[in-house]
Amino acid sequence: MTSHETSPPTILDVPIGIDATGTRAESDSMGTIDVPADRYWGAQTQRSLIHFSIGNDKMPKEVYHAYGYVKKAAARVNARAGRLPQWKADVISQVCDEVIGKELDENFPLYVFQTGSGTQSNMNVNEVIGNRAVQLVGGDLGSKTPIHPNDDVNMGQSSNDTFPTAMHIAAILEIQDRLLPRANDLQQAIATTGGTWNDLVKIGRTHLEDAVPLTVGQEWSGWAAQLRTAIDRVEASQGELYRLAAGGTAVGTGLNAPHDFGPDIAAEIAELTGRPFATAPNKFEALGGLDAIVAAGAALRGLAVTLMKIANDIRWLASGPRAGLAELRLPANEPGSSIMPGKVNPTQCEAMVMVCIQVIADDSGLAIAGSQGNFQLNAMRPIIINDFLHSARILGDACEKFREFCIEGIDVNRDRITDFVDRSLMLVTALSPVIGYDAASAIAHDADRTGGTLREAALASGKISAEDFDRIVVPADMVGPF
Amino acid sequence: MTSHETSPPTILDVPIGIDATGTRAESDSMGTIDVPADRYWGAQTQRSLIHFSIGNDKMPKEVYHAYGYVKKAAARVNARAGRLPQWKADVISQVCDEVIGKELDENFPLYVFQTGSGTQSNMNVNEVIGNRAVQLVGGDLGSKTPIHPNDDVNMGQSSNDTFPTAMHIAAILEIQDRLLPRANDLQQAIATTGGTWNDLVKIGRTHLEDAVPLTVGQEWSGWAAQLRTAIDRVEASQGELYRLAAGGTAVGTGLNAPHDFGPDIAAEIAELTGRPFATAPNKFEALGGLDAIVAAGAALRGLAVTLMKIANDIRWLASGPRAGLAELRLPANEPGSSIMPGKVNPTQCEAMVMVCIQVIADDSGLAIAGSQGNFQLNAMRPIIINDFLHSARILGDACEKFREFCIEGIDVNRDRITDFVDRSLMLVTALSPVIGYDAASAIAHDADRTGGTLREAALASGKISAEDFDRIVVPADMVGPF
Amino acid sequence: MTSHETSPPTILDVPIGIDATGTRAESDSMGTIDVPADRYWGAQTQRSLIHFSIGNDKMPKEVYHAYGYVKKAAARVNARAGRLPQWKADVISQVCDEVIGKELDENFPLYVFQTGSGTQSNMNVNEVIGNRAVQLVGGDLGSKTPIHPNDDVNMGQSSNDTFPTAMHIAAILEIQDRLLPRANDLQQAIATTGGTWNDLVKIGRTHLEDAVPLTVGQEWSGWAAQLRTAIDRVEASQGELYRLAAGGTAVGTGLNAPHDFGPDIAAEIAELTGRPFATAPNKFEALGGLDAIVAAGAALRGLAVTLMKIANDIRWLASGPRAGLAELRLPANEPGSSIMPGKVNPTQCEAMVMVCIQVIADDSGLAIAGSQGNFQLNAMRPIIINDFLHSARILGDACEKFREFCIEGIDVNRDRITDFVDRSLMLVTALSPVIGYDAASAIAHDADRTGGTLREAALASGKISAEDFDRIVVPADMVGPF
Amino acid sequence: MTSHETSPPTILDVPIGIDATGTRAESDSMGTIDVPADRYWGAQTQRSLIHFSIGNDKMPKEVYHAYGYVKKAAARVNARAGRLPQWKADVISQVCDEVIGKELDENFPLYVFQTGSGTQSNMNVNEVIGNRAVQLVGGDLGSKTPIHPNDDVNMGQSSNDTFPTAMHIAAILEIQDRLLPRANDLQQAIATTGGTWNDLVKIGRTHLEDAVPLTVGQEWSGWAAQLRTAIDRVEASQGELYRLAAGGTAVGTGLNAPHDFGPDIAAEIAELTGRPFATAPNKFEALGGLDAIVAAGAALRGLAVTLMKIANDIRWLASGPRAGLAELRLPANEPGSSIMPGKVNPTQCEAMVMVCIQVIADDSGLAIAGSQGNFQLNAMRPIIINDFLHSARILGDACEKFREFCIEGIDVNRDRITDFVDRSLMLVTALSPVIGYDAASAIAHDADRTGGTLREAALASGKISAEDFDRIVVPADMVGPF
Repeated sequence: MTSHETSPPTILDVPIGIDATGTRAESDSMGTIDVPADRYWGAQTQRSLIHFSIGNDKMPKEVYHAYGYVKKAAARVNARAGRLPQWKADVISQVCDEVIGKELDENFPLYVFQTGSGTQSNMNVNEVIGNRAVQLVGGDLGSKTPIHPNDDVNMGQSSNDTFPTAMHIAAILEIQDRLLPRANDLQQAIATTGGTWNDLVKIGRTHLEDAVPLTVGQEWSGWAAQLRTAIDRVEASQGELYRLAAGGTAVGTGLNAPHDFGPDIAAEIAELTGRPFATAPNKFEALGGLDAIVAAGAALRGLAVTLMKIANDIRWLASGPRAGLAELRLPANEPGSSIMPGKVNPTQCEAMVMVCIQVIADDSGLAIAGSQGNFQLNAMRPIIINDFLHSARILGDACEKFREFCIEGIDVNRDRITDFVDRSLMLVTALSPVIGYDAASAIAHDADRTGGTLREAALASGKISAEDFDRIVVPADMVGPF
Repeated sequence: MTSHETSPPTILDVPIGIDATGTRAESDSMGTIDVPADRYWGAQTQRSLIHFSIGNDKMPKEVYHAYGYVKKAAARVNARAGRLPQWKADVISQVCDEVIGKELDENFPLYVFQTGSGTQSNMNVNEVIGNRAVQLVGGDLGSKTPIHPNDDVNMGQSSNDTFPTAMHIAAILEIQDRLLPRANDLQQAIATTGGTWNDLVKIGRTHLEDAVPLTVGQEWSGWAAQLRTAIDRVEASQGELYRLAAGGTAVGTGLNAPHDFGPDIAAEIAELTGRPFATAPNKFEALGGLDAIVAAGAALRGLAVTLMKIANDIRWLASGPRAGLAELRLPANEPGSSIMPGKVNPTQCEAMVMVCIQVIADDSGLAIAGSQGNFQLNAMRPIIINDFLHSARILGDACEKFREFCIEGIDVNRDRITDFVDRSLMLVTALSPVIGYDAASAIAHDADRTGGTLREAALASGKISAEDFDRIVVPADMVGPF
Repeated sequence: MTSHETSPPTILDVPIGIDATGTRAESDSMGTIDVPADRYWGAQTQRSLIHFSIGNDKMPKEVYHAYGYVKKAAARVNARAGRLPQWKADVISQVCDEVIGKELDENFPLYVFQTGSGTQSNMNVNEVIGNRAVQLVGGDLGSKTPIHPNDDVNMGQSSNDTFPTAMHIAAILEIQDRLLPRANDLQQAIATTGGTWNDLVKIGRTHLEDAVPLTVGQEWSGWAAQLRTAIDRVEASQGELYRLAAGGTAVGTGLNAPHDFGPDIAAEIAELTGRPFATAPNKFEALGGLDAIVAAGAALRGLAVTLMKIANDIRWLASGPRAGLAELRLPANEPGSSIMPGKVNPTQCEAMVMVCIQVIADDSGLAIAGSQGNFQLNAMRPIIINDFLHSARILGDACEKFREFCIEGIDVNRDRITDFVDRSLMLVTALSPVIGYDAASAIAHDADRTGGTLREAALASGKISAEDFDRIVVPADMVGPF
Repeated sequence: MTSHETSPPTILDVPIGIDATGTRAESDSMGTIDVPADRYWGAQTQRSLIHFSIGNDKMPKEVYHAYGYVKKAAARVNARAGRLPQWKADVISQVCDEVIGKELDENFPLYVFQTGSGTQSNMNVNEVIGNRAVQLVGGDLGSKTPIHPNDDVNMGQSSNDTFPTAMHIAAILEIQDRLLPRANDLQQAIATTGGTWNDLVKIGRTHLEDAVPLTVGQEWSGWAAQLRTAIDRVEASQGELYRLAAGGTAVGTGLNAPHDFGPDIAAEIAELTGRPFATAPNKFEALGGLDAIVAAGAALRGLAVTLMKIANDIRWLASGPRAGLAELRLPANEPGSSIMPGKVNPTQCEAMVMVCIQVIADDSGLAIAGSQGNFQLNAMRPIIINDFLHSARILGDACEKFREFCIEGIDVNRDRITDFVDRSLMLVTALSPVIGYDAASAIAHDADRTGGTLREAALASGKISAEDFDRIVVPADMVGPF
């Protein structure tokens, strides 16, 4: 039907925007409905706005930008397959570039809590691209002529296969372009900053209690290593995200899609995005489940678990200034209290901890939603992509702020750190291999009771000579390497 | 210091808005910083914007509106106590009314993930009210004269006690003004709609398997009852929310607050809001924990658990039209598929299920954040109020949409419902008290094997006469009351 | 069928136990199966053992004890209604007392992860009571004569209504007989212990940072108040648990149950247990949902959230002994380290924190499971009652251990506490109402920079006289009441 | 101290067991305490039993078996390093083999909720191995001579590094020896069983609503693919688990461990277990965090999310027999109802769903606990390993039961499946590329309204000829491959 056009229309040089006020009639299979005259969307978008204005949660714009790639790739594949006139593919592609370039963002007004397949957002894209394309060829908005939102823009596709495709693309772009650079920068900053204190011996703490010494650099190296591993896990989670559902159409069989549409559109998307996307090996898996995003979400959660530990450690180490541990000094970015003058608080750490809790919470939503698929469709897609992108976004931003406004401005309080080492009782551990665990334990308890130093108690015990004590109990020798 | 003014300035009739461009210098204890000249906020707000632009999550406006009540109540109490000149209280009150009236919303730009005490949002309020009040008396913006954000607007207060106060107020208003009306309307709609089918006998289902009959009205009454109980729980959770932390100031002792400031400001807030707020009996509890909101969140979660069950039941009962249960017909609000023409999907149910999952996820964040308080402060306040209000908001809206666009448009498919009853094997249960469980069981298995009716199998078993069967196995007699 | 017996058999004085080895044939509607000859259970229990040996999680014994009440109450109601011969009711009641008395525990071997209705555990009870009753009247085990597990022991009942009934009974007994006494004792211990330090001034901490002072007693009063509120919430959650599903039978209509069976059996259970149980007002709610337990679980979670905060506070306050806060001394119950001699760790706090996390985790399972009901049955009952009882049990036990081995043995380190107060910078807050927030802030910052005392910095600032400083900055006057 | 023995004692041939009654005095650094005379454990185990009898949760035996490898490996490395006499290493190794062989299980009685480092379980192992070794060389139990639990059995180790080492070993063994074989068998069974119906065309379902057709084999292939991917994720999670903390001792520095102890003991453990364990590259990470187990737990959760979807699909497809979907027939393993004779329920599916929910709940505990580390130790180890092993165990067992008692016994109901296809309206989708989406949509709506067939409505529409309809709308041609 759409293949009989012979002379392609001229593509006009019309800037984005509709110079109209009031409303315009748009139609779909359920009839006609008025939409704002200055917007490109059509009937199905408008219906969704009426039926699903729930809260303030809007479908993330990143999903639409990803859809820009999907629609462009589809148009090109369809044109090459001879199903879509080349001029249609060209104008669709041109509009897709506007979508990808965020120029049409205000035409994507839909809410997260809508149909579980994401159909309404797919149709929003189809309608906007369709009307903008119609505008570019001088047609009447709402006429679906000569570019039809379903028959042309959605050709060979279903929401069922393109929405998860857009989800994967959006997830990959968010991870690669926003989260990973920021997380890596933070990891590097921790490694570098900690590295400046490689020789500063401090007292270790286990169970919050004084333990044997390590260096500040060693402590920070633990954070850096944890973070490195957590980032590696996020990177590894991308493998499954590269597999695209497109080509499965309505239920995974690929009905109404051209032969090889799956591999072809995936290759096209790979080229357009510059990322190694490929067609999913089993489309029933790709439509019926959203396990790849759930798994990627778990990787984000892993990052949150690690960052929460680090942020907590830092705020505790910076506690004080006088009635806390006070080993670290955090940059004072803002006044800390509206009532207590001069107070400086570990606010970046607190923000990071809250971000991490939110990511853990979002992730619990991912798991539940991921488990609730039925048959050929998991109809929890909007919440899944929204929670995933939310987590990735706040983690990425928090990594950046935490690095810039906390890690890079941290200094150590050498006097305090050294004082703790000097007064520690746990250095007794070094005596254990020499005088035995039980004797060493008695010495530590004695010192604790008397409030005296470990050396005093050790010598008083008669178990070791002053000479041996001074040779063995040397904090700097107790931090390895062994 | 602020008590020496003698002749109160005239309050000018200046509309909201600052006619300036570029930036204005504002200062706090850390120094001077440029803020947008057309905004009322000051230095601390600006610093927070720089340090905490994390994601798109903004501190909910409801928190600021609630703070409007807090600041107004504080000003009035302070004036009555003679600590604040009456004219200052008056102008502060006037600005608070603008805050409460949402007229200053664009001056509250801060992010959720900020300092854990909410200090920055409290200071945002103090600064905006301060500058707007300064403007109203003809002073210089940023001069903090003659109205000082800390010394006047924050008088007798700390973020530590006012932020949880604002949290409780915001929670109560959201529950009472938005969630409960919508949830109650939905509950009523379910009760009413279901009540129209009180005599329509249908087959029950347990384990998804055919069971003994009940009426459609009975099935719906179960949903209505569950929902009633769940709403009751939300209502009960308000008891703790009425207890306000204000008066505890920095750590709960009430330092720098006037005598009886706690009870006085609570009474004032009660009067201003028309809700029975009262001062919290133990301020250390009120600052150190946020258990009341965590508990209220659990009540929201309970509502979500119930609504998820109802929404799932309805979408399953509406499944089909030909290869599903098809007992219910849902209103067709929109085309269901971008590829399968004529498809109608249970989209309101799906949106509701996603909302419920999100509420469960938000609530898991509440529990974790609630557990992470330390000493005199739980520094997870922003995430807690954000997640709570988010849950309440989406639940309320989803109740409204679900009622309007699903429940109220549902119709039954009588033919289908009756056909299921006629062909059911589980009516055999009525025979069990007469012929025994084992004999009845054998009859059901026989009918299942042969594909025949229960009556045929029962008569063939020789355990019961046709007469007795027809007397005993009467679906309409099997639905009670007994 | 069961109503034709005329002369009741003698009840023999046979002790519990079956003097047999090898196996015994038992049958159900699916045929015959061998069971261990020395056990009372029958065919359905045996089938469940074969099909559901998943992990080590066994259905909690408390569920069976609760079922003892249900079966006894049913027998008595049925006898009164004339449906069950009195002698049958008597022998069933006698066996139920053995069940309640935990004497038949080893005859309840089933796993948690079984049929979602709990039918297999109900049948386990029916079979065991049936066979034990048969034994007591001299019948043949496995003969179901003269006491039939379904027709007699299960008369008027379904698993669908009795299992949630047993769940509610078990939950109430666990809460009242185990959890609440232990939680209340802990609450009292905290209140009492803290009360001994009502006048000991300490430095407050917000954001982990030094803040204005309060007393040790005030700090502990906050914990006691939080705990009191949390316990109140658990107590309030019992209201819904008192509503019993019994009488609803298979789908809520009460089919095959005698008239008024619901109210009658609830009254009987109330009498037998001495707790105010009553029949659920809507049986479709009571079978289709498990919301009451989910809500009670949320109350347990609330307790966990509170206890986690308290346990964390205590372990931090006890951190040290030399490089931590060290305000509290915990009892040394055991050696703390296998390598560091003399180490004492806050192990009771750690156990409590882990218990709280487990309760939060269990509760997340409750919420998910609670949401997964379908139509006339929530088929997630076993996991729900198992997770609930697990949470209640570990919370109760942990409260007891924490009280006995931590709270009651805690002592304060007065020197340390006083030293922190003396050196604190946040006492500057008391100056704020006198010299203004900004000036006070500058003084605190100066003292922090120089390492000097607040007094030195204050006098150096010229903002206040020594006399005024000494009059105003008195920690003991800063803790209220105001 | 322990190095002065010259002539090694003879190792006696004493069977496991202590022929004594009453109690035996054992001592540790806190003094003397009575232990049961017939048990090998010592003072610290006994103290833990007294202080931590919380609930019924015992430290999993798998942790002790794993510790058997650790202690054996340590003894061998220490002997080679010349720090431990060879005969001591030999007798310790011999006892470790008994531990690994589960022969000493009843000597490991400790609870999960104990010290957060697992020290008490480490000491339990040290004490039991020590006393058993003492027994084997004819010494006095409790004398710690000539084998000392700390100085010999724990030589070069700390709980802090060996407990996470045992955690990783236990996790790997549980995954490889129990979970993966069962999960793989299930995956294979699904693939194989589904493969027998590769050509059976059925109606697809999206949003629970009728959609375009696919084959039964395709549907099952989606499950098999999801499961394959989920299992792959579990396998990948092992990479981090192979990294062992041993060698880090108390805080990660390796204090008191011989040079290269970390790599050496890891190599030894690798040889003893036959799995590629290696020393963790950063010991501060390995002690301070438990991220590897949290990540492995997320992989288990992923498996649960997938299995829950599959189990739900199957129970819905088997719903009926007359008022449900009834496409599948499940094996009838047991009577389904205590009141409804002849009922067969999808009990294996329900058990699986509950297991999956429990795994999701356990996993939420892992995430919280994982986030709660402080400084050089995450003191939430016992709950983490317990929840992880619990999840792995119930998933493994559930996979086995589900395969054996559900999947392998499933049959299809061909009549039902074919009937659904024949009556479906969604076959209209095949017309969409020919007559356009809107026209096709109108036809489907017409058929739905009239209750007629799609063919009738299509022809009545005049949009397509009978010939074309019959050529295009062929279900078997609509399932691909395209």
